[in-house]
Amino acid sequence: MGTGKPTGSRTLESIAREIGGTVEGDGGCQITGVASVEDAKSGQITFIADEKYLKFLDRTQASALIVPEKFDIKTDRNLIRTKNAVRSFSRVVEIFFPPTPAIEKGIHPTAVIEANVRLGEDVRIGAHVFIGENAVVGDRTVIMPGSVVEASVTIGSDVILSARACIKTRCVLGDRVIIHSGAVIGSDGFGFTVENGKYVKIPQVGIVVIEDDVEIGANTTVDRATLGVTRIGRGTKIDNLVQVAHNCTIGENTVIAGQAGLSGSTHVGSNVQIGGQAGFGGHTKVGDGAIVGAQAGVIKDVPEKAFVFGAPARPKGEEGRILASMARLPEMIKEMKALKEQVRKLLKERGKNADESEDTRKER
Amino acid sequence: MGTGKPTGSRTLESIAREIGGTVEGDGGCQITGVASVEDAKSGQITFIADEKYLKFLDRTQASALIVPEKFDIKTDRNLIRTKNAVRSFSRVVEIFFPPTPAIEKGIHPTAVIEANVRLGEDVRIGAHVFIGENAVVGDRTVIMPGSVVEASVTIGSDVILSARACIKTRCVLGDRVIIHSGAVIGSDGFGFTVENGKYVKIPQVGIVVIEDDVEIGANTTVDRATLGVTRIGRGTKIDNLVQVAHNCTIGENTVIAGQAGLSGSTHVGSNVQIGGQAGFGGHTKVGDGAIVGAQAGVIKDVPEKAFVFGAPARPKGEEGRILASMARLPEMIKEMKALKEQVRKLLKERGKNADESEDTRKER
Amino acid sequence: MGTGKPTGSRTLESIAREIGGTVEGDGGCQITGVASVEDAKSGQITFIADEKYLKFLDRTQASALIVPEKFDIKTDRNLIRTKNAVRSFSRVVEIFFPPTPAIEKGIHPTAVIEANVRLGEDVRIGAHVFIGENAVVGDRTVIMPGSVVEASVTIGSDVILSARACIKTRCVLGDRVIIHSGAVIGSDGFGFTVENGKYVKIPQVGIVVIEDDVEIGANTTVDRATLGVTRIGRGTKIDNLVQVAHNCTIGENTVIAGQAGLSGSTHVGSNVQIGGQAGFGGHTKVGDGAIVGAQAGVIKDVPEKAFVFGAPARPKGEEGRILASMARLPEMIKEMKALKEQVRKLLKERGKNADESEDTRKER
Repeated sequence: MGTGKPTGSRTLESIAREIGGTVEGDGGCQITGVASVEDAKSGQITFIADEKYLKFLDRTQASALIVPEKFDIKTDRNLIRTKNAVRSFSRVVEIFFPPTPAIEKGIHPTAVIEANVRLGEDVRIGAHVFIGENAVVGDRTVIMPGSVVEASVTIGSDVILSARACIKTRCVLGDRVIIHSGAVIGSDGFGFTVENGKYVKIPQVGIVVIEDDVEIGANTTVDRATLGVTRIGRGTKIDNLVQVAHNCTIGENTVIAGQAGLSGSTHVGSNVQIGGQAGFGGHTKVGDGAIVGAQAGVIKDVPEKAFVFGAPARPKGEEGRILASMARLPEMIKEMKALKEQVRKLLKERGKNADESEDTRKER
Repeated sequence: MGTGKPTGSRTLESIAREIGGTVEGDGGCQITGVASVEDAKSGQITFIADEKYLKFLDRTQASALIVPEKFDIKTDRNLIRTKNAVRSFSRVVEIFFPPTPAIEKGIHPTAVIEANVRLGEDVRIGAHVFIGENAVVGDRTVIMPGSVVEASVTIGSDVILSARACIKTRCVLGDRVIIHSGAVIGSDGFGFTVENGKYVKIPQVGIVVIEDDVEIGANTTVDRATLGVTRIGRGTKIDNLVQVAHNCTIGENTVIAGQAGLSGSTHVGSNVQIGGQAGFGGHTKVGDGAIVGAQAGVIKDVPEKAFVFGAPARPKGEEGRILASMARLPEMIKEMKALKEQVRKLLKERGKNADESEDTRKER
Repeated sequence: MGTGKPTGSRTLESIAREIGGTVEGDGGCQITGVASVEDAKSGQITFIADEKYLKFLDRTQASALIVPEKFDIKTDRNLIRTKNAVRSFSRVVEIFFPPTPAIEKGIHPTAVIEANVRLGEDVRIGAHVFIGENAVVGDRTVIMPGSVVEASVTIGSDVILSARACIKTRCVLGDRVIIHSGAVIGSDGFGFTVENGKYVKIPQVGIVVIEDDVEIGANTTVDRATLGVTRIGRGTKIDNLVQVAHNCTIGENTVIAGQAGLSGSTHVGSNVQIGGQAGFGGHTKVGDGAIVGAQAGVIKDVPEKAFVFGAPARPKGEEGRILASMARLPEMIKEMKALKEQVRKLLKERGKNADESEDTRKER
């Protein structure tokens, strides 16, 4: 989110202190930046969190690595050991790329703030932003250039609307929500009734509620409920170009990968993982802790903690067996042909053996 | 579309009069809002249009329900009976959420209107809107904040461009069209020719014509024709994140669900229903009244009134049989193995019986 | 890109001269516009590049056609013969629709240019554009209305950002790049770590580099790398609504059709063709010259020049055989049933023939 000009140089020791880790090796080593284990150059710090990447320990040109406390390794590399190496490395990244808001405190003169808007303290409202009447924006919230916040929207504190985000009328965002560029929250649900052979729009007057700590990807669309609420639960993370239709509910701490699509009134539980391009038929329910594979086509309810994939989506074991069988199909068809021929011969011979009669010849 | 502050309280009788229905029960009952049959609270009106929801008749806390005239029910609930309960309820929703435009009449001072633009009467042009030269905008049309209407675009009357919509140069929109936020109408078709081993852009100089009463979802893209017209027929409704490529034509009164994708020169008829995430290979034709299932992969023409699904898409019965067979595949492979073994034994015995010769052993 | 008012009238001879072709027929014939071979009217010029369209040679109402030098045809139609008929026709299209930028030279007064921005010569910056501090914009680059260029972005020369494009902080665009409306370049990668059972954002501080001559479709999203670079190679063309996740690399001269999705760290080679709605699992590699079919689900590496399709994606021949087999499945299940019955009978008879014992009856 920051302008991201990497800042300065630090000793390994001072970094370790800041992230609560223990140095092994040269604590006075100067660190000037961060990189992945494959790309790191001298002067940079990197990390290995998974033993399968230990092969890079000798190869990397990094001047230091963050590794888990539990790693049983001996090396002359400079290390910082911590409990959660990924998390610790994230914090080091933030030392070098401080997450300062990309725009200044206050309201840009080209922003349009309509009547009766309540802005919190220390908000940052960018160029060409529009905020409709009666909207509420919490403290320290950042609304980047070109974003539109329609009338009567309520936005919590420490929220980031990335450039050109759009929050439509009466929708509600909690605290620390991140909406990426081009995302549209609160577009009309896709609902029509037929009258005299033509589609007539059903008014879409519900709202979208996005709870605390949710992140919504670029160009993702979340439709308002026809009536009531389309809800995205606390801590849920949604990737780019995802479609969440009207009246869906998504629980807490769920992740949905890019281009997945939820039809109207899909109900997804908490701690669910949904793969990219997966699709959900209307009114399906996905239980807590379930995993739905990429490109799955979910047309019936997914039980708690189930792992389904395929289209139509089936439990992992079942679908795995079907896929394995499919790979064998062409061969099987050949075998079937051979088998038919063998049986035909057997039947023919049986006929001969049995009575040499006419009727077995007719069988052919 | 309105700012949607629900308005006041009405008697059931006055509502019935307005929608042309008949009250059963207490016509003086005060109604303060609308909700779904599951969520409705005391004071609210709801509806049941389908007999399968009659189970909610006793359970709902609503103070009144709209039901079809033909429902054969006895209840002490307050009812309004009408011909089309969904349509009637929609009209009641509009009583409580009047569809007043979200922005004021006139042109916002931050809007940029280029030379030679013709604006109709009572248009509403929002903040930071751009309208290019020679564009035409019909009466009562609403262009919400941040939208871009490029040069020489023609837009009809009573059109709504939701916030941040984009209509590109020379495209034509009929009357009562709704374009949702982030939709892009008239982006370049994806057309290249190869010259010296490199892709060279083919100029995309056609247009998009969107006929009356069409609705286009949020972040949907409709590409202009290379030459000629990409056309979306009257009354057709397209959901969010749909891709309509260059030179496609879509008939009247067709519905296309979210994330479906039409390759170049796909021709879809009228009264067609297309499910979410369905994809169409280039130059395919879909006949009038056809139904295409979600996630279908259409690679050959779909006849009139056909129902196809699957990838590759096949007629419903055929694909249904294939899917059912696939579920049986793993079992079938086991059966096949058993069968082969049985036949092998039979063949072996036949060999023995026949002449006890060497050659049958070789068969193994 | 131009406002596209078709210009004037030209003789066939003057057109031929301009595109380096040879006239057959009436060089003085007046040409007033361009159209496809099916739609062309008298006065218009069209083309036939593929012999399978030669059936239109007599039917078309066009006044002239561009055809390849090598076509062995005799006709009294007016022709221009050239080496590459498609490319030549493109150039004729540009005669009638000159690709003049849709906006004027200079900076629109409503555009916001932050401190320390370096603008090249003859740039065109449209209404309501935002350019963040320290950004660099090359000569003759056009930034259409409503676009956002964040701080420290570097954009080359002769680039076109279509209306409402968004280039996020520190990303780099080469020369002659085209970014279509609504596209978002440099949104955060979708990366989280788990801490105390909750997802915690991993800082996304890498960038996107888009090399020369790349075209990116409307509402497409390209995420910045977590660390390092998401790279799109020179001359690559990406269609609408495509998702390119963090740390992907795409080679040169590759084409990716609409709604395809690349998960994190997908590595696509050069001269690859990817069909619409295809999906790629994380960390997959696609070799140079490979072809990936529409809706394919790529979960393992695709070798150079391979042609894969299906989900999961398999080599063309293999997947073709599987699909053909699937169509035969329902019939096969019937055959299997018949075969089982035949074998059952054979086994039963064998039992009788062999020893008429009890145990063969138990077999049933």
